[in-house]
Amino acid sequence: MDERVREHAAVLVDWSARIEAGDDVVVSVAEDAHDLGVAVAEALGERGANVTTLYGSDELSRAYLKGAEAGSEGDGDDGSDASDDGDASDDGDTSDDGSDASDGAAPVFDDDPAVDRAIFEAADAYLRIGGGRNTTATADVDRETRRAYATARKGVREARMDTDWVSTVHPTRSLAQQAGMAYEEYQDFVYDAVLRDWAALADEMAHMKDVLDAGDEVRIVTERDDAPDTDVTMSIAGRTAVNSAASVAYDSHNLPSGEVFTAPYDTAGEAFFDVPMTIDATRVRNVHLVFEDGEVVDFSAETGEDALESVLDTDAGARRLGELGIGMNRGIDRFTDSILFDEKMGDTVHMAVGRAYDACLPDGESGNDSAVHVDMISDVSENSRMEVDGEVVQRDGTFRWEAGFEADE
Amino acid sequence: MDERVREHAAVLVDWSARIEAGDDVVVSVAEDAHDLGVAVAEALGERGANVTTLYGSDELSRAYLKGAEAGSEGDGDDGSDASDDGDASDDGDTSDDGSDASDGAAPVFDDDPAVDRAIFEAADAYLRIGGGRNTTATADVDRETRRAYATARKGVREARMDTDWVSTVHPTRSLAQQAGMAYEEYQDFVYDAVLRDWAALADEMAHMKDVLDAGDEVRIVTERDDAPDTDVTMSIAGRTAVNSAASVAYDSHNLPSGEVFTAPYDTAGEAFFDVPMTIDATRVRNVHLVFEDGEVVDFSAETGEDALESVLDTDAGARRLGELGIGMNRGIDRFTDSILFDEKMGDTVHMAVGRAYDACLPDGESGNDSAVHVDMISDVSENSRMEVDGEVVQRDGTFRWEAGFEADE
Repeated sequence: MDERVREHAAVLVDWSARIEAGDDVVVSVAEDAHDLGVAVAEALGERGANVTTLYGSDELSRAYLKGAEAGSEGDGDDGSDASDDGDASDDGDTSDDGSDASDGAAPVFDDDPAVDRAIFEAADAYLRIGGGRNTTATADVDRETRRAYATARKGVREARMDTDWVSTVHPTRSLAQQAGMAYEEYQDFVYDAVLRDWAALADEMAHMKDVLDAGDEVRIVTERDDAPDTDVTMSIAGRTAVNSAASVAYDSHNLPSGEVFTAPYDTAGEAFFDVPMTIDATRVRNVHLVFEDGEVVDFSAETGEDALESVLDTDAGARRLGELGIGMNRGIDRFTDSILFDEKMGDTVHMAVGRAYDACLPDGESGNDSAVHVDMISDVSENSRMEVDGEVVQRDGTFRWEAGFEADE
Repeated sequence: MDERVREHAAVLVDWSARIEAGDDVVVSVAEDAHDLGVAVAEALGERGANVTTLYGSDELSRAYLKGAEAGSEGDGDDGSDASDDGDASDDGDTSDDGSDASDGAAPVFDDDPAVDRAIFEAADAYLRIGGGRNTTATADVDRETRRAYATARKGVREARMDTDWVSTVHPTRSLAQQAGMAYEEYQDFVYDAVLRDWAALADEMAHMKDVLDAGDEVRIVTERDDAPDTDVTMSIAGRTAVNSAASVAYDSHNLPSGEVFTAPYDTAGEAFFDVPMTIDATRVRNVHLVFEDGEVVDFSAETGEDALESVLDTDAGARRLGELGIGMNRGIDRFTDSILFDEKMGDTVHMAVGRAYDACLPDGESGNDSAVHVDMISDVSENSRMEVDGEVVQRDGTFRWEAGFEADE
């Protein structure tokens, strides 16, 4: 085994998740992430933690969801009495029985199944190791099916996010392919991003957190000849920024990380996201959003607009921002069509529609609520500025505490 | 995908586990059992069941247990204060804290970790799909470690056995290798054993169940020139035989199955088991057991005696029989070094030391209790007889309701 796999496991278990003896740890291992799963299991055994391993296979998920679609068509041989009237009045977010849905409707899923709920209610930590064999393995699952499934599992998701959860990936051939890179080249890319001096990066990012914590309003402007302008403002008053240093000790849940993020509200204006992304296995490019009174009132995408629309229609919160993030990890040197890496890259900012992270909110206050959280990224390396309360904090990718920063154009 | 994989999944879900809409189903998928896992997930989606998928990887288990061994040596760099005095008074079955064990002792595991306990307490059914990449993947784990781990997880195991559980295997190259067969030949072997008319076999096995339910004492005798004789008697009074027709509806939990078994007690005499087996990744051949007052008082094995000894030393119940089984599946035509198949083969009987199955016991009565259940098999095709209350029921493999049976020699 490549020694970097064991180093990755040690960072995940010790720096990121802060596992201690006696902790009940749930590990999800994707199809091709076996080697990192083995290294993590070994580390957990050494630390005296308990481990339960889930199989995080996209192909199994796809099969289950396609099976549910077939079952909901009422053509089963099990004597079920699915109605055939086509009057599908349930849209998947209110029904709670396990019976077949009507023809043409999305399958109906049980709300928060008992086993999955019990797992995350009992777990201290959840380590998700991504890395399948095909990043588009679920491409032929209907969007309505995905939405119904996600909506039915909101309680499971919340229980999971109440653990010390960390999401990482094992470098696989499918992720290398998605990144357009050779396998060994991609391995180097991943380990360069993961095996860092995280304590030092945390110190660096503390500057940005201080600015956002003290500020009330953020404005982001980009002016480019080849794309629609961005000019968007949002309130961050009363919100707390997270210094996302790849550790639960910093309320940070991604490995690698390297961003500072907060939970904005009252967003207004227009924003353009030029970094390509994949939503539900669909390629989405050049997203343009128009906000009024905190809500997306108009949208377009050059490709994948249907996937974007499906996200925005998930629920009321899916049209409001849950996150504004500032990428500060200059160890990540290219876009690889993976949100885990792309959103952390220096010279980028990102906004997510959907669920806000509790860590950004005052105790007892709830932020934007949704079954989804979908990040969209803008390159701010040129012709851009970010202002906090009218003062420029970052221009053309350079922060004001860095050499070369210019306050005025 | 081979259509037989989907047929296997349908037998597992419908005939064996009797899954219905709304059931909470836990599926464990071994490393190379992905395809059957996919087919099962699809079937569960169609039936409207909920699914949680565990990764049943022997390599992960091995890594965790080896990690625990390394951690218990007190050489961690985490500042733990493992004692070095060598006075290891805990033997792994009474301690319940998560601290490091002393040098030289087996690792100490938490009793019944919360997540695993919660999973099986919440589950309606558990489908275990075996089929790794190396049937000896855990060969270098210390026996003391295995024992400590098994002992600590007794409550988890009991909760799992309180579900509608079914164990099967996907035909993998490693299992083909263990069986000494080509891959495609082994696939045919497995599907011939699994894709049967189970209702018809259940009717056939009902004869044997009736005999055992009515009987008080079983005697098994084999007399062969090339091996020690078997002459063993055991009481079955008050016990109920299971017609193991590969369905939870018959209290049967293996797919394939095809045996009738009960829970004997007061065993006396000697028994010889000539069918080779694998215990904890160790090859064990030609086991000889001597029973007095229901307990193994002497034992030997031509190879693997240490592994046998470790099993018998697990706990008090490990030296008593938990099962007597009569193989009746004549669709299985050879030994493949897999207990799932070997013990079901016609012309064999098997006895297991360790835990008895509740289905054989009167309500409220507890049978033999142990952390282990290890089956040992005898070929009874020649020079053998089984008597129930003094009457010969099977001679040289032929049952008394079959053509060619001879009551007297």
